[in-house]
Amino acid sequence: MEMAFTYLTNIPLDQARKEYLAVLAEQGFAARTERIAVRDSFGRLTARAVYAHINAPHYACSAMDGIALMAKDSFGATETTPVTLLENQFTVVDTGDPIPENCDAVIMVEELVKNEDGTITIHAPAAPWQHIRQIGEDICAGEMILPGFMEVTPSAIGAMIAGGVMELEVLAKPVVGIIPTGDEIVPPCENPKPGDILEFNSSIFSAMLSSWDAEPRTYPIVPDRYDEIRGMLQKAACECDMVILNAGSSAGRDDYSARAVEEVGQVLYHGIAIKPGKPAILGYKDTVPILGVPGYPVSGIIVIEELLRPLIDCWYGRENDRASRTSARLTRQIVSGLKYQEYVRVRMGYVGSDLMASPLPRGSGVVSSFMKADGLVVVPQGTEGYTAGESVRVRLLTEKQRLKNTLVVIGSHDPLLDEVADMIHRNDRRLYLSSAHVGSMGGIMAVRRGEAHAAGIHLLDTETGEYNRKYIKKYFPHGEVYLVRCVGRQQGLMLQSGNPLGIQSFSDITRNGVRYVNRQKGSGTRILADYLCEKNGVDPAQVYGYDREEMTHNAVAVQIAENSADAGMGIFSAAKLYGLDFLPICVEEYDLLIPGKVWHTTMVRQLIATLKSTEFRERIEAMGGYTLDRPGEIIDVF
Amino acid sequence: MEMAFTYLTNIPLDQARKEYLAVLAEQGFAARTERIAVRDSFGRLTARAVYAHINAPHYACSAMDGIALMAKDSFGATETTPVTLLENQFTVVDTGDPIPENCDAVIMVEELVKNEDGTITIHAPAAPWQHIRQIGEDICAGEMILPGFMEVTPSAIGAMIAGGVMELEVLAKPVVGIIPTGDEIVPPCENPKPGDILEFNSSIFSAMLSSWDAEPRTYPIVPDRYDEIRGMLQKAACECDMVILNAGSSAGRDDYSARAVEEVGQVLYHGIAIKPGKPAILGYKDTVPILGVPGYPVSGIIVIEELLRPLIDCWYGRENDRASRTSARLTRQIVSGLKYQEYVRVRMGYVGSDLMASPLPRGSGVVSSFMKADGLVVVPQGTEGYTAGESVRVRLLTEKQRLKNTLVVIGSHDPLLDEVADMIHRNDRRLYLSSAHVGSMGGIMAVRRGEAHAAGIHLLDTETGEYNRKYIKKYFPHGEVYLVRCVGRQQGLMLQSGNPLGIQSFSDITRNGVRYVNRQKGSGTRILADYLCEKNGVDPAQVYGYDREEMTHNAVAVQIAENSADAGMGIFSAAKLYGLDFLPICVEEYDLLIPGKVWHTTMVRQLIATLKSTEFRERIEAMGGYTLDRPGEIIDVF
Repeated sequence: MEMAFTYLTNIPLDQARKEYLAVLAEQGFAARTERIAVRDSFGRLTARAVYAHINAPHYACSAMDGIALMAKDSFGATETTPVTLLENQFTVVDTGDPIPENCDAVIMVEELVKNEDGTITIHAPAAPWQHIRQIGEDICAGEMILPGFMEVTPSAIGAMIAGGVMELEVLAKPVVGIIPTGDEIVPPCENPKPGDILEFNSSIFSAMLSSWDAEPRTYPIVPDRYDEIRGMLQKAACECDMVILNAGSSAGRDDYSARAVEEVGQVLYHGIAIKPGKPAILGYKDTVPILGVPGYPVSGIIVIEELLRPLIDCWYGRENDRASRTSARLTRQIVSGLKYQEYVRVRMGYVGSDLMASPLPRGSGVVSSFMKADGLVVVPQGTEGYTAGESVRVRLLTEKQRLKNTLVVIGSHDPLLDEVADMIHRNDRRLYLSSAHVGSMGGIMAVRRGEAHAAGIHLLDTETGEYNRKYIKKYFPHGEVYLVRCVGRQQGLMLQSGNPLGIQSFSDITRNGVRYVNRQKGSGTRILADYLCEKNGVDPAQVYGYDREEMTHNAVAVQIAENSADAGMGIFSAAKLYGLDFLPICVEEYDLLIPGKVWHTTMVRQLIATLKSTEFRERIEAMGGYTLDRPGEIIDVF
Repeated sequence: MEMAFTYLTNIPLDQARKEYLAVLAEQGFAARTERIAVRDSFGRLTARAVYAHINAPHYACSAMDGIALMAKDSFGATETTPVTLLENQFTVVDTGDPIPENCDAVIMVEELVKNEDGTITIHAPAAPWQHIRQIGEDICAGEMILPGFMEVTPSAIGAMIAGGVMELEVLAKPVVGIIPTGDEIVPPCENPKPGDILEFNSSIFSAMLSSWDAEPRTYPIVPDRYDEIRGMLQKAACECDMVILNAGSSAGRDDYSARAVEEVGQVLYHGIAIKPGKPAILGYKDTVPILGVPGYPVSGIIVIEELLRPLIDCWYGRENDRASRTSARLTRQIVSGLKYQEYVRVRMGYVGSDLMASPLPRGSGVVSSFMKADGLVVVPQGTEGYTAGESVRVRLLTEKQRLKNTLVVIGSHDPLLDEVADMIHRNDRRLYLSSAHVGSMGGIMAVRRGEAHAAGIHLLDTETGEYNRKYIKKYFPHGEVYLVRCVGRQQGLMLQSGNPLGIQSFSDITRNGVRYVNRQKGSGTRILADYLCEKNGVDPAQVYGYDREEMTHNAVAVQIAENSADAGMGIFSAAKLYGLDFLPICVEEYDLLIPGKVWHTTMVRQLIATLKSTEFRERIEAMGGYTLDRPGEIIDVF
């Protein structure tokens, strides 16, 4: 448990980046160039000005279909005094044909009268050089076609080839080596063993690098052995223009990274004042930057975005930050430590005319949450965060137009929402549905805060046995919302396959040896479980694991399927998905709550239409455990 | 000269496109799908929803470096009543390590006191499941990771691999066959023979197709033989998802295209009411669209943009038109025929706060002009055009931000402007210089219209022998412009190498057998030539070719170098570039005219700094024929 490399700095990001670029510039870090075929050069940057080798056109040619002649042979021709040209006075030419020697004009085919004896009669004179494309009309040999450091466009490719240029020198794409390290890291596969961590960071980083016009090169996974890490680093630093050393840069047991970078080259900083991402290593060997990147995917993404991307931008000489930014209103507060510049992922949406940003969970191991993020709020070092309702600057990860077309559904989780998302987007590719699982009460609050277009809710009024209505009346005393019928769901106890513990009723969860797994407080299913405890005289304190909370039906089912728990409340479709036994308890109403102000939007119209569709019925019935009674209809609440 | 296929329709573009898409839909035109590795799927569109195969994490693991234990063994620990754990009560774990059987909590290394006897002392209890990442915390098996028809992002790649998904089904990139045809068409080379036309259209089209996520496949050039064209078309229609048949679609001598499309499949329309591009053929064989595209590059580009791109958009189900549009003020009128929808390329620039659009020459064979175009003005069918000063909608071909950073130089041509463009952009990659050659008087008018940031001028006052000042005073009576010293240029007669005709003075251009080539009216060099005629008693009517006009020094030099003319006025650097003889006549002042309102802009500052630089001097001296006297200084005019 000793630290291998105890020296961790806490340098502000901007300072670290600036010094890193300066040190690298001093080392001679700069773009390589390469010669490539012009036809393959689309989108590349010229390394220097490109000059034409030949004229285009390279011969005088006809600009029309017709005849070439000496203009002076046509002089004097009019409607009343036509001129007839003998066969040796003209040559038939098509567009692009060379102009024969001793000809200096072209007459269009439409203006000719062809006689039976092979002569041609004309009724107007030709001006010298008419309808002739002169040599070099398009491009003259020796002229500059493109300056240096310009992007090659399709028409520039045409112009270069027309100018006889077959190859050109462009900035090479920087080769970025990625070295994954770690004893527990294994190549991606479908059946990993416990303890194996799938190596997917290199695939994420490779995609990011490609999008920045770099060429990723992933090396084999290196175990946590110092010599092997150092050796691979040495090799990559020789073969690549930049190197990413992934994982092993935190202050943990197996941390050899910083020492290896130090031995192969130099370390400028180990430790940056950002969160996530603080254990980053800024190193280099000669002109090759070596960046130590933490193993957690979210930390890695941020370090690469903040520290490697500027190097690629510098390589190409382009502006450093082209991420589009916008302002949005925070739906909840963001609390941040003073010590770091913190990156908070947010889900965004236009609910009405305001752009709202809702902070996502900050776990840096959770790659799916990065996928769901529409933006990043950067809380500067020395700032404690932002309050709910505050307008903040957001770095967009999703296009604004797409945000305008995204239906935001926040509330109780049901896998049917994913199916609805799929159907809505397939039917109208401009529309998207993004969903967040925060439980039924969370959904009601999200609608109140103007954060969602819809919320899935299933809240039992334990006094009347009725669902949802009482809660709507309480939280929306002025109305202004619609409650829309969605599905009836079979709730019950999910149990291990074959029910090895012989659980026969809800009360059996108190039995010795039964490991229960619960849903989070505020979820409809938790409220149901609490109600069932009360009704059945079960003391939650006597239920082993009643405090163990998961956020979704599926997550509860997974714990049971993986034998980390024996029982938990949930819906039939989740139990079915994981092959669990199921003890039915009740059918609940899962409805959608929709704010009145978005009721008439295209997106909500499409949602309602989807609920009413035959395909929705078919998909939901295939999932099992649902009843459908006029989905999409408004429930009379008020 | 007979037409092979006389039937030419003149269908409005919108109607043709709509019917084409409808007919193809009826035929069953739709995207293919393919299975690819997830790691290669960045930027692709999912063909259907992707579900996780495994949980992520797939085992309960430690979220911290520390020890795993049974939480209940820690209960009761406080600062004053620490608990000591025996070696068999805990397991050392690193972040990501699996939680051993019978453990249900992790305590961080920072909170442990390690004793010499191997036991560990703690001063606070662990809550059950603390610092443990539950199975499926990130992704649960069976959950939807991505809906169908979604673009794969870097983090989605990570999420799929974490979810055990190694392959997915995506929309295939449509393979678009390109068949170049024509007897005169030859593969690109540096030494084409007269009459050869370099086949660069396929390279332009390929780049366009790549940028739209299609996969171009270029077939060998097919000569103008009906059977061969039909055969290649048949082959391509079997091998590709879409086919472009290039050239041969005008009503010329060798037009077999429409007949071949008709025989292989069907022709919906031959002839669209657009200019350029009217001879387009809209055909198909079964589900494969076959588009006949005119041979001129500009026509081809427009037909492919207007008729093939919508097919690719339809394939991917994306919105049809994503070109950004803007409004701009026309600097000159656009006259358009009523019969066609006309596409006019424009050069654009912000001179002051207004975005100006200047129509470019409309020749459809001139690929370099498309390269220089910043936008397209589309004049609808049935409209006669637009007047100067009118605000028009423009389809942008250049990013707006780049337009804001582009120095527009319009006036007399000198190759030194290209060198300046190269230097300015290399020194500050955000800045661009775009130049147009319209002669000195054209430059003065461009500055008056507010169309240019600078104009190169060299206008001789024939009464005083002085350059430029008188013209500035005349056209800018209120001042508001700066005249900036640029270079002295050696003007003279450019002559064929070795001077075979023995031309000794300007007056010799009247000699029998001397073919003169002139510059266009309004150019400073033409004014000089006219003045020299007057001064030397030369009657222009006696000079063979005095009416033959070229737009640049280089273009005049090229005609002489290619033996299409014997003499022409021009500058020494052009004569030197083409290895011509040169008869010096005078040194003229080539200055830059700059409107006062842009004088303090970054771009103009950079221009002035460049003129004053050592590198400018070195480059210009290497070109030859220039004298430099304090370039970049203001000339006192008013």
